[in-house]
Amino acid sequence: VSAAPETGVSSGLAGATVAVIGLGVVGGSLVRALARLPGGPRVLGASPDATDRSAAERETGARTATDAVEVIGEADVVVYAAPLGAIVEMLPAHAPRLRADALVTDVAGLKRPVLEAAVKAGLGERFVGAHPLAGGEGAGFAGGRADLFGGARVFLCADAAAKPAARARAEALWRAVDANPSWVDADEHDRLMVCVSHLPQLVANALALALQDQGIAAGELGPGGRDMTRLAQSPPRMWSDLLAHTGADAAGLLRAVVDRIEDVAGRLERGDGAGVAELMARTRAWRGGRSE
Amino acid sequence: VSAAPETGVSSGLAGATVAVIGLGVVGGSLVRALARLPGGPRVLGASPDATDRSAAERETGARTATDAVEVIGEADVVVYAAPLGAIVEMLPAHAPRLRADALVTDVAGLKRPVLEAAVKAGLGERFVGAHPLAGGEGAGFAGGRADLFGGARVFLCADAAAKPAARARAEALWRAVDANPSWVDADEHDRLMVCVSHLPQLVANALALALQDQGIAAGELGPGGRDMTRLAQSPPRMWSDLLAHTGADAAGLLRAVVDRIEDVAGRLERGDGAGVAELMARTRAWRGGRSE
Repeated sequence: VSAAPETGVSSGLAGATVAVIGLGVVGGSLVRALARLPGGPRVLGASPDATDRSAAERETGARTATDAVEVIGEADVVVYAAPLGAIVEMLPAHAPRLRADALVTDVAGLKRPVLEAAVKAGLGERFVGAHPLAGGEGAGFAGGRADLFGGARVFLCADAAAKPAARARAEALWRAVDANPSWVDADEHDRLMVCVSHLPQLVANALALALQDQGIAAGELGPGGRDMTRLAQSPPRMWSDLLAHTGADAAGLLRAVVDRIEDVAGRLERGDGAGVAELMARTRAWRGGRSE
Repeated sequence: VSAAPETGVSSGLAGATVAVIGLGVVGGSLVRALARLPGGPRVLGASPDATDRSAAERETGARTATDAVEVIGEADVVVYAAPLGAIVEMLPAHAPRLRADALVTDVAGLKRPVLEAAVKAGLGERFVGAHPLAGGEGAGFAGGRADLFGGARVFLCADAAAKPAARARAEALWRAVDANPSWVDADEHDRLMVCVSHLPQLVANALALALQDQGIAAGELGPGGRDMTRLAQSPPRMWSDLLAHTGADAAGLLRAVVDRIEDVAGRLERGDGAGVAELMARTRAWRGGRSE
């Protein structure tokens, strides 16, 4: 991953003011990444969490506020990095105070609900939804890092009414922090996320519950077991917001996983070692066939 | 992780000859780690795989052989790093050719079957079973690395007849490569492994199959989905050997995971967001409560 100061500077962030609303892992990482761009934008932050605010000010020099309304009026780019439910509430409340030429964007894990809220709030022309595929097991500002987005895929989506300048600025924002933005349809994105993100999350929770039921402590896990339960540490609040929109679809996919587990368990019970090995060879080819 | 040449040298490996039988991820990493110890042991290797043999010779200078019987007679320490089934077959076949004062050890993921085979082969006094909790998603010698065991837990077990010198040498071997050996009962170890290793493995396979059923490509996964399917790349052969011993227990645990998945799916279908969040808070406390 190369540093990309020129990218950021040459594509419209130089001299701009970016306000990041929410200073958790993703918002905090964005503040760090933007603040270190030479000649990059002025960075503002907002969070109700005093610890995150003071850490952000100390580490990056960004000015922060408790309430987003104190900073959004100054910003050329406003990035909502709060939980989905909070973003959907803030957009209509903030719309009258946003600069008319500001790019409004977000980082929520589902794009249809945010896009709808933005359009309804009259922001369709200048809103671009974003979903960076990056995170970590930490929490709050302390859980982020300046290079979190290096090489990360970022899904972008917008209403048909979105202006080319807004789209270009959203791409520039993510390129400046070394991410790889690409455009998707919001509905397709959300369907994909239920499979590749919500489903693994819920399976990690179920596995962790089953291990806990067996009296296993997390410290007894080896590297594989740790990988398989890392997501069990995810913040419930963030997931409540996402699952409120996708719970029914996610439940359907969980039943599909149950069918596959029953398949494996049945082969084991019948002593069908060759049958289990056949399934493992299939997943090995699938998982290893595309490296990233 | 500090380099530990003194540990290795001062505790009985200096001047010794160590033969590593099997040059895959674990065996290959051990050859690398031992070969770089200043003043450390002479290292021999054996593998039926010509690619692994030539890579080991090129990278570490270790002399290697196709058949283990060509090297075991020279060794003060023989480490079996082959699949469980192969180890259980080799022990009685090799026993007459092993030096009478050699430490015989292994790295298999289950300890009862190997311990039984060693005792039956008359090796109870000088056999110490070992299971390093370390691995990776690679395969063969190329998938290993010299620092694989740095900080890793290594479970050791032995028959009551095992001599103190054999026990001490096994501890020294793992300390020399910066691992943390500790003694366990073979049966307790194997029961624990079904929970913390076999179960996560099989859940990863089932999840990967379900995702594949949905037409998802591995390259579409984000960091969480990648973690949750990394184990789906594990070699089927190794697991066939392990599951031949633990399949029935593993199947029982898979049913327990199914119950937990049904619990989560039911809450999602009933729109019980608070109920899902409660489960997530429980797994978060469990997983985060013990960091390592």
